[in-house]
Parts: sequence; C-alpha cells; structure tokens
Amino acid sequence: MNYVDLLGYVAGILVVSSLLPQTIKSWKTKSTKDLSLLRYIIYVIGIILWLTYGIIIKNGPMLLMNSIALILASSILYLKIRHG
Amino acid sequence: MNYVDLLGYVAGILVVSSLLPQTIKSWKTKSTKDLSLLRYIIYVIGIILWLTYGIIIKNGPMLLMNSIALILASSILYLKIRHG
Repeated sequence: MNYVDLLGYVAGILVVSSLLPQTIKSWKTKSTKDLSLLRYIIYVIGIILWLTYGIIIKNGPMLLMNSIALILASSILYLKIRHG
Repeated sequence: MNYVDLLGYVAGILVVSSLLPQTIKSWKTKSTKDLSLLRYIIYVIGIILWLTYGIIIKNGPMLLMNSIALILASSILYLKIRHG
C-alpha cells in the first residue's frame, strides 16, 4: 500500500467512525425520535450509489469506507423505522 | 461527463445533502447541546484528509462532495464551539 492509499483509508475510517456514536446511542436507548427519517433515507441511498461508484472505479478506500458506512447508516435507519 | 462520473456526482450530492437539515436546524435554533463535539471534530478532520486524497487522485466527485461537506460540517462545529 502506498502513502496515498493509506491517506484514503485513514480519511475513510475517520469519516465513517464519526457515525459510530449515533449508532451505539440509538441501539442502547432505542430512542430515535430526534433523528430525521428523511435524512437517513437520503443518506443510505447516497451511500449505496457511492459504493456502486467505488466498485466501478475500483477504489479501495471508497469500497471499505462505504461498506462500513452502509452497515452503520442502515442500522440507524432500521432503528428509526422500528422505534419511530 | 460519462455515466460513471454522473453516478459519482449524484451519490456525492445525496450524501452531502443529508448534512443540510442539521446545519439549517443548528443555525436557526442556535441550540447544539445534543450534538457530540468529538463526533464533529473527528468528522471535520476526516473530511479534510478525504478532500486531500480526492485532490491527489484527481477525482471530481470526491472533490466536489468533500468541499461542500467541509463547509457544512465546519459550520456545525463552529456553532457547537460557540454555543456549547
């Protein structure tokens, strides 16, 4: 791995890890009324397209980042739909 | 612009636009106590690195997306630091 790829991976991990506190909080509290449903629907669709784009241009950091982001954002969306 | 680039731009716009509701809400209410300071610090650092990566690999959608994300996330971080 070269330094440029490493930069991409570090950047991706930082951006994605910023989703973690919300995911953990929502799982623990099962309270999601302050979250915007529309925000997470738009976000999940965006990540799916962004992941597809990463697959097409064969970009490793984008693939890794968006796969993890998709899991975390989908979890939040699932909790929002389930708990309202 | 080819279809692959178009996909990247649409994906980027969707992901970034999901930040807008929070930015607008925080500007209007000037209340940011429920936001996590650490989350936004990590996020802004991540976007700066992600933008640097986009510049190095000369990827248009990443450049556009992360420039806008940086403005929005920095605004939220500024409001959080200012209003606590």
